[in-house]
Amino acid sequence: MRRWWNIVMVLCLAVTARAAAAVAPDSLVHALLRAGYTGNTAYQLLQELTSHAPHRLSGSTVSLMALDLAQHMMRNAGLTHVRVESVMVPHWDRGTVEEARLLDASGHPIGPLAVCALGGSVSTPPGGITAAVVEVHSFDELRSLGKSAEGKIIFFNRPMDPALPDPFDAYGRAVEQRSRGAIEAARAGGVAAIVRSMTLAHDNVPHTGAMGYADSIRKVPAVAIGIVDADRLSGLVARGAAPRVHLHLDCATLPEVLSGNAMGELTGSEFPEEIIVVGGHIDCWDKGAGAHDDGAGCMQAIEALRLLHELGIQPRRTLRAVMYMNEENGLRGGRGYAVAPGRKGERHIAAIESDMGGFAPRGFFVKADSLTVARVRRWQPLFESLDAGKIETGPSEVDISPLANQGIPAFGLIIDAHRYFDVHHSDNDTIDKVHPRELEHGAILEALLLYLISESGLR
Amino acid sequence: MRRWWNIVMVLCLAVTARAAAAVAPDSLVHALLRAGYTGNTAYQLLQELTSHAPHRLSGSTVSLMALDLAQHMMRNAGLTHVRVESVMVPHWDRGTVEEARLLDASGHPIGPLAVCALGGSVSTPPGGITAAVVEVHSFDELRSLGKSAEGKIIFFNRPMDPALPDPFDAYGRAVEQRSRGAIEAARAGGVAAIVRSMTLAHDNVPHTGAMGYADSIRKVPAVAIGIVDADRLSGLVARGAAPRVHLHLDCATLPEVLSGNAMGELTGSEFPEEIIVVGGHIDCWDKGAGAHDDGAGCMQAIEALRLLHELGIQPRRTLRAVMYMNEENGLRGGRGYAVAPGRKGERHIAAIESDMGGFAPRGFFVKADSLTVARVRRWQPLFESLDAGKIETGPSEVDISPLANQGIPAFGLIIDAHRYFDVHHSDNDTIDKVHPRELEHGAILEALLLYLISESGLR
Repeated sequence: MRRWWNIVMVLCLAVTARAAAAVAPDSLVHALLRAGYTGNTAYQLLQELTSHAPHRLSGSTVSLMALDLAQHMMRNAGLTHVRVESVMVPHWDRGTVEEARLLDASGHPIGPLAVCALGGSVSTPPGGITAAVVEVHSFDELRSLGKSAEGKIIFFNRPMDPALPDPFDAYGRAVEQRSRGAIEAARAGGVAAIVRSMTLAHDNVPHTGAMGYADSIRKVPAVAIGIVDADRLSGLVARGAAPRVHLHLDCATLPEVLSGNAMGELTGSEFPEEIIVVGGHIDCWDKGAGAHDDGAGCMQAIEALRLLHELGIQPRRTLRAVMYMNEENGLRGGRGYAVAPGRKGERHIAAIESDMGGFAPRGFFVKADSLTVARVRRWQPLFESLDAGKIETGPSEVDISPLANQGIPAFGLIIDAHRYFDVHHSDNDTIDKVHPRELEHGAILEALLLYLISESGLR
Repeated sequence: MRRWWNIVMVLCLAVTARAAAAVAPDSLVHALLRAGYTGNTAYQLLQELTSHAPHRLSGSTVSLMALDLAQHMMRNAGLTHVRVESVMVPHWDRGTVEEARLLDASGHPIGPLAVCALGGSVSTPPGGITAAVVEVHSFDELRSLGKSAEGKIIFFNRPMDPALPDPFDAYGRAVEQRSRGAIEAARAGGVAAIVRSMTLAHDNVPHTGAMGYADSIRKVPAVAIGIVDADRLSGLVARGAAPRVHLHLDCATLPEVLSGNAMGELTGSEFPEEIIVVGGHIDCWDKGAGAHDDGAGCMQAIEALRLLHELGIQPRRTLRAVMYMNEENGLRGGRGYAVAPGRKGERHIAAIESDMGGFAPRGFFVKADSLTVARVRRWQPLFESLDAGKIETGPSEVDISPLANQGIPAFGLIIDAHRYFDVHHSDNDTIDKVHPRELEHGAILEALLLYLISESGLR
């Protein structure tokens, strides 16, 4: 009996000692706010990333520069085991010709159209193609046209629905036009696809993004068109003006390229083999500078760990920042990370990502079993004290979905989305659209979440 | 018995008929989202206000033009009883000379300083004043200087604390330097006050705002200085360079002017004498265009009523949009409205204001008895469905504080404040800083709140 009592005493002391070494969450909140908002370092890092590596599309030279830069930043932030794990990635290149002209029914030029190739599009034949335009708002409408769509350029013009309170919902309900428009256009006998840009802003900046082809169906070129020009084109169609469009692209899909995920960590003091990842995707489209999508998420991950390091926090479990490559057109980084060939013995206990932009955060989505969600919800008052108390169940962010599919609890920052699709995948996605405090706010939340999971686990 | 039964039946039918005429709140939410976000009319109204009446300081000619414009907008929105109720307002004018030059210890000019007179400041003597600078961070520090402050320009340089999660808190803890700096400077024997601008942005745009004098204490001129120049001046002081400043202002307080509050309404179908007011302040500082402060709140109020009118809603109680005059430097509008000399027989049952900017709203502050707050909290799920579910107790907005002090439940929109003090009271407060959806979001929330209170009252 005496022996058991001694063991209990030792355990109690150990727990007490542990509690003394740990930081009270409330104190950590205050320290994170001070360190975070005084320096706004996430913004400084993002300035560096977007100025030195603005077009980080997978396979490009700039995307490899971004990997170097991210490693440099992680070393500066005090992270260790900074490295790149290799993945092969697709390499699509926009080329140098990207032109659309509006013509009247008899072929006389009326003016240019603001377009950009969708990512993955084939080129036009040399010299371009010219055809009449058919406007549709759904694939069903296109199918109902029968043979009258043959030989035409199919103009998918269903807007994102502004009445949905969540712009991501509106995006989700419109984006099939971009992702599958070329397939459906070709299936209907069309020669190309023009897709209304996925945005709620009323400007004329085209928004690119991923599109796909089906193996059995002819590949036709596909472009996004700015909203002002989409409305103009639609008006001509509605007035029976029978407009034609001349389209000329020389984009191409090149051989795959060796690339990788950049990562670095704060090694756990007690359970170094238990890993909590936090990250974003380092690749972005070749329009704008990928400031919000997803330079923001990458720099927030580095900043979250930098803040904890600056505050002298020694996490019990290993915190790893991961900059995934190739979210935009392949997910090779996220998939490659999850199979982790060189990291046997590790056990991932949580994955966090920020990929909804660097605007004001509101809380987290959690994808996990209900017991884990309930456990996370106990931390809600802490996040509420940071004015971001939403803890909602939801799907995983894309890069960490391979981890989530293995049953690892996945967390995604919830961001105020009113402005996001103004900039998404377009020339508008630049540093001047990012607010230093809003960006830092996300990093502070991630740092707190990392700490809480690291201290107590999720079991 | 039979007679009682008949009465019960009649009452039931009346309730049923009433329920049929009313709109289900969920349906109203959807209709408001569609009507609001499709048109973004609040933004169009704000474009009109800020382009035609950008400097609407009380007493100015432009402020009277703003009253005309607001009435025009309210009539166009379908409101009735559109009118102006008179109030007398102070009239301070910035004049045409507003100049500060930095000099070295021996009086040689080093360069200009970005300053603007604080609202209400006296002018300098003709030709300006030149004096050495003493930097302090608190009134206590100033008092501790004793005679060494005499004859000096007192430079109040305590920043807003960036580590406070709510920028309004940070403002509240720093703004005494602006509001009372001239009093304390004069009391210490100083000849003028220079106050670090109330902002968290790191730019060089000075931010004006109200300041006061005490009757028994000499009046000295007071200016705000941009952050970059504040840091420059502070650096010179810290290095012992003994900088001097030449300050020249010709601002002046002129005789009071007849002005007023503009208002219009949707008259209640059942209880027209029960009034729910919604509003903002139509006056603004003479810097920028008062887009966020508080053109946003005024246009949201008009838009909230316009939306209900467009949707064919006949409110049971009277909904009144009020554009209060003179929030910035006197509160004559809010005070005048509350005494309501020409509106006897009316009973105000709630007052709503938006005056924290036109950024993304998060919910409402409520100042009311606990029973009323509990009743309002039952509507929380509806506001949560609009992504703005915060219902917090808090102080009243300024214009409606005279009503709140009479015990009338007061509601203020809670706004995401990260960006607010970047623009507040400065040349940065222009329409390009306003996002159409964020602004409309606030109007939609107000429309819903108006409807709910109008349907059920607050008892």
